[in-house]
Amino acid sequence: MPSPSLGLELLERLGELADLGHAGQLMAWDQQVMMPAEGAAARGEALATISRLHHDRLVDPQLGALLQRDAEAEPLIVRAVRRDHEVARRVPGELTAEMSRAGSDGYGAWLRARESNDFAVFEPALRRNIDLARQYAACFPEAAHPYDPLLDRFEPGTTTEQVSALFERLRAGLVPLLSQIAMQPVHQSLQGDLPVAAQREIGLEIAHAMGFDASGWRLDDAVHPFASSPAIGDVRVTSRFDDESLTGLFALMHEIGHGLYERGVDPQLGRTTLGSGVSLGVHESQSRLWENLVGRSPEFWTHWLPRMRERFPLTLRDIELDAFIRAINVVRPTLIRVEADEVTYSLHVILRFELELALIDGSLDPGDLPAAWAAKMKQFLGIEVPDDLRGVLQDIHWSEGIIGYFPTYAIGNVLAAQLWRVAQADLPDLDAELTRGELGSLRAWLREKVHRHGRLLTPPELIEQAVGGPLDPEPMLEHLRAKYGALYAL
Amino acid sequence: MPSPSLGLELLERLGELADLGHAGQLMAWDQQVMMPAEGAAARGEALATISRLHHDRLVDPQLGALLQRDAEAEPLIVRAVRRDHEVARRVPGELTAEMSRAGSDGYGAWLRARESNDFAVFEPALRRNIDLARQYAACFPEAAHPYDPLLDRFEPGTTTEQVSALFERLRAGLVPLLSQIAMQPVHQSLQGDLPVAAQREIGLEIAHAMGFDASGWRLDDAVHPFASSPAIGDVRVTSRFDDESLTGLFALMHEIGHGLYERGVDPQLGRTTLGSGVSLGVHESQSRLWENLVGRSPEFWTHWLPRMRERFPLTLRDIELDAFIRAINVVRPTLIRVEADEVTYSLHVILRFELELALIDGSLDPGDLPAAWAAKMKQFLGIEVPDDLRGVLQDIHWSEGIIGYFPTYAIGNVLAAQLWRVAQADLPDLDAELTRGELGSLRAWLREKVHRHGRLLTPPELIEQAVGGPLDPEPMLEHLRAKYGALYAL
Repeated sequence: MPSPSLGLELLERLGELADLGHAGQLMAWDQQVMMPAEGAAARGEALATISRLHHDRLVDPQLGALLQRDAEAEPLIVRAVRRDHEVARRVPGELTAEMSRAGSDGYGAWLRARESNDFAVFEPALRRNIDLARQYAACFPEAAHPYDPLLDRFEPGTTTEQVSALFERLRAGLVPLLSQIAMQPVHQSLQGDLPVAAQREIGLEIAHAMGFDASGWRLDDAVHPFASSPAIGDVRVTSRFDDESLTGLFALMHEIGHGLYERGVDPQLGRTTLGSGVSLGVHESQSRLWENLVGRSPEFWTHWLPRMRERFPLTLRDIELDAFIRAINVVRPTLIRVEADEVTYSLHVILRFELELALIDGSLDPGDLPAAWAAKMKQFLGIEVPDDLRGVLQDIHWSEGIIGYFPTYAIGNVLAAQLWRVAQADLPDLDAELTRGELGSLRAWLREKVHRHGRLLTPPELIEQAVGGPLDPEPMLEHLRAKYGALYAL
Repeated sequence: MPSPSLGLELLERLGELADLGHAGQLMAWDQQVMMPAEGAAARGEALATISRLHHDRLVDPQLGALLQRDAEAEPLIVRAVRRDHEVARRVPGELTAEMSRAGSDGYGAWLRARESNDFAVFEPALRRNIDLARQYAACFPEAAHPYDPLLDRFEPGTTTEQVSALFERLRAGLVPLLSQIAMQPVHQSLQGDLPVAAQREIGLEIAHAMGFDASGWRLDDAVHPFASSPAIGDVRVTSRFDDESLTGLFALMHEIGHGLYERGVDPQLGRTTLGSGVSLGVHESQSRLWENLVGRSPEFWTHWLPRMRERFPLTLRDIELDAFIRAINVVRPTLIRVEADEVTYSLHVILRFELELALIDGSLDPGDLPAAWAAKMKQFLGIEVPDDLRGVLQDIHWSEGIIGYFPTYAIGNVLAAQLWRVAQADLPDLDAELTRGELGSLRAWLREKVHRHGRLLTPPELIEQAVGGPLDPEPMLEHLRAKYGALYAL
């Protein structure tokens, strides 16, 4: 318990909210990883009930009164809970329920649209989701921009204006870099057989080096890799391996990065509503840091490549470190976000952010979305979109009414590079440690700077404390220019 | 939904109770099968919260009012829910909470007592559990015997008097049969290596023949095999195999028997509180019927033994059906209930029932339990108890304050034989089907007679409908006399 000075009654209410969150997390994890297919309908109902009970308790006026009474005992805890309480109270229950139904219907429409590769099948559902998102935003009339309350669900404390400015600078740096790379000879990805069983084995070794241990973690397969943590002592990551690429290995490092964040929260915050990551952007900074800044670096592979050669003798026996690093860092404009590389990924995100803004402020009609998508793909990445499946129908988010989420992916990339720069300064031996396979001081540093705080600091406060300033695209752009300048001899 | 005539408000409340039950079932399953060890503390808290929310909703006077209002719409549903509501309302919340704490403490004391093989370490905790059980019983002053309300938690509608009479007759039949067998030469159990991987494979084949399918079931390993079903479409069984015996294979058939019950409930009862098995005794009749009456019969193995010989060529290649049947039906008095055979098992149960009765009616002091245990082991099974670990400390139940549960194991054995007799009459081809590996008509028959009703009928009603009379030990005794008379040439 965080402090004896917080009233027992309030603590018990926070505990109850945490327990309902625990149940919901586990049920959602199980649904994707363990549940037999015929359990789906009952699970949907049960999850909805748990979520409604959580919401009822969060908006309870008696919780508000207790927060008032105990406000000075643990001001940071009370501030965070009060914020959740007040945001939840703003939104009428009927709207929340309608958004949930529309999200569920929209997911069905999206699946059907994907089957026929036809955006028109999805359009009415998207229109409804956008309309509901605007109704949600209207519950916060004081917001400077109607997108602000939507963004705030995933990245509390950061405004649309700030993200627009950040992405403007980011795009201005990325597009020319990509053009330069596109003029160079194309690098080869890894070719050949990379058996899944061997990837799983070395994946688990890398996971252990990162901090995974069976007493507090699980690793399973899932169609879409994700991380989940019912409790600080119970962190669950998933990956999906295929024997033609190392995608699953990088996905695993990514998810372990998320998991380390949840696992590193101060246990004192357990069984409160503050015992998890503070925002999706900060979360993504952790996964991306491990996946890209560690996992695609020559230092990391100095230690691990010899082990890879032993595991994959047919494909990797004769590969040199330089060639391996080039092969896992191929940059090229592609149609699909989740397959994008370190340079192009954020451009996919900025495209979606700009389209979301236009849909929410009404300047773009949902019916015109495919055309707008194609125009931006041409503008940002220089490629044509051949069909809806490889264009506007590729992501699940909008189908479920999730708007305001996409920008957090690029915020994570930006923040990862900022953290990396400070870590390099604070840990002068970091590169040498990586070449020896030692990941412990980086993990400890991240825990100290980021993980342990849970949701106690706001994301802007946490970022300010950790990197000495606000979100800034320069470290990321410098990192990319230096890295790919060398790799592509720019 | 069972019927449009049941009020929507009541249906929604039943749905909420079912959803909380679903969450609790899943969390308990996960705790034993999937959860990393460090998740235990948080899981305990979360489970307690879910259980408390369930209880709060069940005792809610508004639920009582709705049950009153809708009483005539669906009388059987209303009757069952009202019974749960009224029983729960009788027990003060503080007593329930204290029983839960005492059960948790008692489990710890039991573990410590087992470590030192010393009942004295456990005795104070047992005394507290017995005292609380008596307090629980006192909440039902109209009961003819203080043990009635305890039994009623697990076998609703059956009285202590009925169980005493049933067990008296059962014991009077079993003890002489056992004495006769004990005078015959000892049969050999299976000897030799029975690799776990092969057991798992053929176990899954048998499970599929019984009705297991991956779209609605899971099979996992667990230290203590059990079955769980968060929903009718989501049934989870576990087993534990070792390579020196077929214990895990029989445990699997046992658990699939439980699972078939849950899977066979009328889907119309889904998302009500009636969508599961009606009592532990009826549940155990299903598991025992598959494990013993099917799974230890020559007819069943006529089909499966050739497949076993292929899977286990080193150990079973040359074994004849007769010898195999003898080997899986060895009878001998042993100290441990969970290792007991078809003849002795119920004697272990009757022993515990009689001791529970004496502890509850005050005629036995908890301090005198080891001596009373030893005396009954001598009387029933003719063997000496060498220490507490192999005596009074072997079962977990009393440590957690679970009293009134044990008799349901023997009730299940009795009812299984009653059902088997009727099934044989209703399905004249049953034996022939078993020899061909066909289990479908038996499964359909059990579904029709038992499974589909869920908790709609009371256990006595269901038993009366299914076998044409009340619980009766004769079919079981006849089955055992015939079977073991032949096997041991009595």
